[in-house]
Amino acid sequence: MSEPLRLGIAGLGTVGVGVLKILQKEAAMLTARTGREITVSAVSARNRGKDRGVSLEGYAWEDDPVALAARDDVDIFVELMGGSDGPAKAATEAALKAGKDVITANKAMLAVHGQALAELAENNGRVIRFEAAVAGGIPVVKALTEGLAGNRITRVMGVMNGTCNYILTRMQSSGLPYEDVFQEASDLGYLEADPNLDVGGIDAGHKLALLASIAFGTRVAFDSMELEGIGRITIDDIKAAADMGFRIKLLGVSQMTGRGLEQRMTPCLVPAVSALGQLEGGTNMVVLEGDAVGQIVLRGAGAGEGPTASAVLADVCDIARNIRLPVFGQPASTLTEVTSASSATPAPYYVRLALQDKPGALAKVASVLGEAGVSIHRMRQYDHEDGRAPVLIVTHKTQRSALDLAITGMAGTGVVEGDPVALRIESV
Amino acid sequence: MSEPLRLGIAGLGTVGVGVLKILQKEAAMLTARTGREITVSAVSARNRGKDRGVSLEGYAWEDDPVALAARDDVDIFVELMGGSDGPAKAATEAALKAGKDVITANKAMLAVHGQALAELAENNGRVIRFEAAVAGGIPVVKALTEGLAGNRITRVMGVMNGTCNYILTRMQSSGLPYEDVFQEASDLGYLEADPNLDVGGIDAGHKLALLASIAFGTRVAFDSMELEGIGRITIDDIKAAADMGFRIKLLGVSQMTGRGLEQRMTPCLVPAVSALGQLEGGTNMVVLEGDAVGQIVLRGAGAGEGPTASAVLADVCDIARNIRLPVFGQPASTLTEVTSASSATPAPYYVRLALQDKPGALAKVASVLGEAGVSIHRMRQYDHEDGRAPVLIVTHKTQRSALDLAITGMAGTGVVEGDPVALRIESV
Repeated sequence: MSEPLRLGIAGLGTVGVGVLKILQKEAAMLTARTGREITVSAVSARNRGKDRGVSLEGYAWEDDPVALAARDDVDIFVELMGGSDGPAKAATEAALKAGKDVITANKAMLAVHGQALAELAENNGRVIRFEAAVAGGIPVVKALTEGLAGNRITRVMGVMNGTCNYILTRMQSSGLPYEDVFQEASDLGYLEADPNLDVGGIDAGHKLALLASIAFGTRVAFDSMELEGIGRITIDDIKAAADMGFRIKLLGVSQMTGRGLEQRMTPCLVPAVSALGQLEGGTNMVVLEGDAVGQIVLRGAGAGEGPTASAVLADVCDIARNIRLPVFGQPASTLTEVTSASSATPAPYYVRLALQDKPGALAKVASVLGEAGVSIHRMRQYDHEDGRAPVLIVTHKTQRSALDLAITGMAGTGVVEGDPVALRIESV
Repeated sequence: MSEPLRLGIAGLGTVGVGVLKILQKEAAMLTARTGREITVSAVSARNRGKDRGVSLEGYAWEDDPVALAARDDVDIFVELMGGSDGPAKAATEAALKAGKDVITANKAMLAVHGQALAELAENNGRVIRFEAAVAGGIPVVKALTEGLAGNRITRVMGVMNGTCNYILTRMQSSGLPYEDVFQEASDLGYLEADPNLDVGGIDAGHKLALLASIAFGTRVAFDSMELEGIGRITIDDIKAAADMGFRIKLLGVSQMTGRGLEQRMTPCLVPAVSALGQLEGGTNMVVLEGDAVGQIVLRGAGAGEGPTASAVLADVCDIARNIRLPVFGQPASTLTEVTSASSATPAPYYVRLALQDKPGALAKVASVLGEAGVSIHRMRQYDHEDGRAPVLIVTHKTQRSALDLAITGMAGTGVVEGDPVALRIESV
């Protein structure tokens, strides 16, 4: 039996408490599986006195996570505080410099500082593991980095923010507008302190950026991601998409193209009958496509105490078992600087617009689309209400730029009211 | 850069050729990811002269896989011959004794000799990796052993024989009887040389036994698995199950109960709307349930050149990256001898029977069920044809033994023709 593996845990929120519970309850099982005793030397959090429903007896307490990270009796610094900068980053750097391995659930920190932190870790012969940062309990970092290591990855897709998926599927099932369901989600405690991290797509975008780095051997490039939240999705769009056989999802897509790396986290339509289309509530799904393996779909809880703690423990067990890989699967120094694709791969689009009740109105819209080179696959005009008729269009595959040209042109026709909505239909 | 990692590959069928293609095409990528050059020293197969569509230039040839396994210039013996005994087992043992690691796609060999081979490997400080043996390209061995290492696994389920799933979903979509679709599958080359390995559930059972060993820390116990193939599934059952909102799947279920380890590979009904119910054609799905993570679902191709080669390469990359675990996740000497549950966990059952057109017939059947303690959740009687009426019953949760008692009792009523069909409805 080797020496015990000693953890220092900073951040005792839901996830930190979940990790402690498993370590306390399943010590024997973890030792049987890893061949090492796993212990906790010290913990740190903002409020020492708070009752967290788990005993902290026997653990040293540190007010300062940076001090915790550098303790002599800590082998792995477990960072569960969150935040891209501030104490999380300072403590992570301190840990690496002091020769500790790091396990983190912090997608924001890695999406922004991943390259620098990976270089720091690897220069110090240390690892950073982050299974808990992406898609909660789904072991997707491992599946991609190790399980599909023999593949040239062709595309990574995912629904990776449970709150957004809850809101969208709840709108679908209840018929309630976005604002009402947003409030429900808020009342249920599903939203981050800054809700824009969720509904703005930022949190999910962070996760996609990390997966893209592993998949394509590129430096994390969150800044160059096309990012759009779900705040503009109306109940009308949810219903209209359903009428056409689709569901709207906040879908991340990353693929390497001849034009560079494409990374999008945007609301997309997917077929209602597809695995992604059927994903309900807070569940996450990641789709990995490789040249040899074809398509692998992974589904599971994307958040919560148990699932996220499960991911943290997987990383702990890996280190206990001496599984040590470069942070993003290959040495940070060999990751290439990303060239971002300047345009998205052509796709069919869904367009919804309000047409005025005038003779020849539909012909004018169709003509503008045709002039922009956008051809129509399916079109539906509904009954007029208050002198306006909702029109739904599904285009054939087109460049987004051509569609934007057409939409700009529609304003000049004098028959379209307000701004048309255009959403990509992703082939899944 | 470390020394090259040198492979010896025995078996150049579909999978072996797929592995060679990736090694030849993606050498640079694999080295970037693992930090080692991966080379092939020697190969072995039954027919040296056969054109396999891949160059064997530069590889030594061995007629005898045992000789290949022990070569000085081989670090990993890759066993892709198949068969539980014979050359595959002899060569695997020779490799381990000669201090080589082993990678195999051979579920039959491990299901039968897994414990002995794992002990041999671990006594020699070697690993046996078998990602390709279970569910093709899905990295499920890794997900279970490593990704969910922090969980007490509560249940493992899976549709892991693509041929059976093809036959069952094709019956559903075409309305053709079992015999016709079996012939189609045979004509398409989907069946093993001994078709009973597929349709008898043996191949899928082997896979489930390996996952159960990892999940529950028990010695592989294929012999104690409840095993039933799909040969008795009629098109009437497929249609009747669909009428009641179900699909029939050859479903593996393994769970640890207070009564011991339950392992079943049997035709079961699952809700048509569930992920398992919607699994079409040759695709595989594995469901892993853990106390912390909840339910994780993995879907992907269960067979074929690319997917299976992908799994073999994952194991090669793991060894190149010095990822070395006990064969079944914990040392073979610590795996416990399994106590098999003598009965399956109670479940609802689907029962189909043919009722004679006599007054009070249905009452007699209902009464026999009631006397056996089986209560009825839903029942449908259809129109009589030729003096017999098909009756479908969905029971409430019951012991299989109680249901068997009722079915035996039905024979004595004089109103039931032939043998009733009873299939478990698995809660997924």
